[in-house]
Amino acid sequence: MKIQPKLTLIGAGPGNPELITIKGLKALSKAAIVLYDALVNPELLEFAPDTAIKLFVGKRKANHSHTQDEINKLIVDSAFQYGSVVRLKGGDPFVFGRGFEELQHAEKFGIETEFIPGISSSISVPGLQGIPVTNRGVSESFWVLTGTTSSGEMSKDIATAAATNATVVILMGTEKLTEIVEVYKNNNKHQLAIAVIQNGSLPNEKIAIGTIDTIVNNVAKQNIASPAVIVIGEVVALHSQFSKWEVNFNQLLKFQN
Amino acid sequence: MKIQPKLTLIGAGPGNPELITIKGLKALSKAAIVLYDALVNPELLEFAPDTAIKLFVGKRKANHSHTQDEINKLIVDSAFQYGSVVRLKGGDPFVFGRGFEELQHAEKFGIETEFIPGISSSISVPGLQGIPVTNRGVSESFWVLTGTTSSGEMSKDIATAAATNATVVILMGTEKLTEIVEVYKNNNKHQLAIAVIQNGSLPNEKIAIGTIDTIVNNVAKQNIASPAVIVIGEVVALHSQFSKWEVNFNQLLKFQN
Repeated sequence: MKIQPKLTLIGAGPGNPELITIKGLKALSKAAIVLYDALVNPELLEFAPDTAIKLFVGKRKANHSHTQDEINKLIVDSAFQYGSVVRLKGGDPFVFGRGFEELQHAEKFGIETEFIPGISSSISVPGLQGIPVTNRGVSESFWVLTGTTSSGEMSKDIATAAATNATVVILMGTEKLTEIVEVYKNNNKHQLAIAVIQNGSLPNEKIAIGTIDTIVNNVAKQNIASPAVIVIGEVVALHSQFSKWEVNFNQLLKFQN
Repeated sequence: MKIQPKLTLIGAGPGNPELITIKGLKALSKAAIVLYDALVNPELLEFAPDTAIKLFVGKRKANHSHTQDEINKLIVDSAFQYGSVVRLKGGDPFVFGRGFEELQHAEKFGIETEFIPGISSSISVPGLQGIPVTNRGVSESFWVLTGTTSSGEMSKDIATAAATNATVVILMGTEKLTEIVEVYKNNNKHQLAIAVIQNGSLPNEKIAIGTIDTIVNNVAKQNIASPAVIVIGEVVALHSQFSKWEVNFNQLLKFQN
C-alpha cells in the first residue's frame, strides 16, 4: 500500500477525555502514529488503533525535553514513513499551542494537513467552575493572554488588559501570579475577583478564589501549582465560593502599622 | 418513574455536527426534551432519543421569536414535567450565549444543572480557515468581543481593542462592520489584515479577506451575511488568500480626485 503522508492536528480539550470532539476521536482512530503532549489525557490514546505508534513529545518530563525543531522533524519523518500522523495537543492547538507552526512546517514538505479544533481551556476551565467568561450586564468581552511570552518575560499586554473591563484569562501564568497581581494593584483594582484553577475538568481539579489582594495567599493555602488557568474580572464574583468580605491579613497588618 | 428535573446546557460547536464533544453527544442521547437554538445544526437532533421532544427556541425565525424570559420559563416547566432537559446552543454557551443566565434561573427553582462546554466559533472558525488566533512572534493574545451589546450599540470595548496588539475576534458584528472599520482607521491601521467568515465549519462556508481599507468592498463582493465571525490582526495575514497589495479602488479614486 502506498504511504499517503498526512498530518492531522487535533485539539484534545482541557483534560477530561470526553471533551474531545467526535471529529477528533474519528481521526485519532485512524492514526498510524500519534505524537502527544504533556497536557493530553493518556486515556485518549486507547482510541487510537492498537497497531498505532504512540510517542510522548511533551516538554515537561524530566527525562527528555523535545525542542520544537525536534517535534517538527519527527512529524515530517513520521508522515513519510507511516502515513497518517495525528498530532494531539491539549486544549485548542491554535491557543498558544505552536500548532500552526507545525502545520506550516509540514506543508513546506508537501504534506497534506488537517486541523480539528479542540475545547480551549481558556473558556471551558472557568466555565466548568461556574464562571462564564461573558455574562450580560457583567462582561461583554474576554481577553486571553499567555503569562509567559516567548522571551520568558511577563506579557506586556497584561498591563493593557488590566486597565480594561474585559474578563482576562491568563494561561501559563501561575509562576507570574505575583507580578500579575501587582499590575492590577497599580490599576487600583484591589477588590476585583480572581480565580486560579488547576487540573480543570479532571477529578483532581482545584480552585483558589479571592480578590486581587487575597489571591496569592489563597493559592498558597490551596497548594495550587501550574499548569493552571487564571481568570480575572467581575464574572468571577458569580462563583458560589467568592466573598468580597474575605480578609487579607497581610493588608490588615499594613493598616495597623 | 419519578421525574428528576435536570438541565444540561451543551455547547454544540460552530456548525459542523462532528464538532460537538463526546460528553455533549452522550448527554444529548439521554434527553427527554431538547431546546435548541438557531445556530445549532439540526443534524444533531438525530442523536437525541426518537421519543424526545425537540423544540426550536431560536430568536431568528420570522414566525415566532422567543424572548429570554419565555425560554427560561420553558426550561423550568419542562424540567418538572419531563425530567432531563437538554439546552443545546451554538458554539460555547458562555460566550455571549446567555447560557449562564439560564443555569442561574433553573437553579433558583432547585433544578440540578450541568454545563458541557462547546467549541467556540471565536477560536475555531478562524482556525479552520487557517488563521490561528495566536502565533508565536505574531500575536501572543486574542480578545473576543460582541459587535452589538445588549443596548444595541457597537461595543465601546472595540475602540480599546483596536488600539492594542491583540488579535481581535468579533461575534455578531457583521452589521456593524462599517463602524468597526472606522475605529481601526482612526487608529491608523489601514493596512491591518481582517477576515469575515460566514457559516464557518460548514460546506457552505464563505470568507472575505482584505485590509481594513478593502474589507467592506470584499464582503459586498463575496456577498457575506450574518451570522459571521470577524477576525482582525497580523495573524490574518497568514491566510493563503491574503494580499496586502490588493487595491482599494475607492481609496484610489479619492487620491486621483
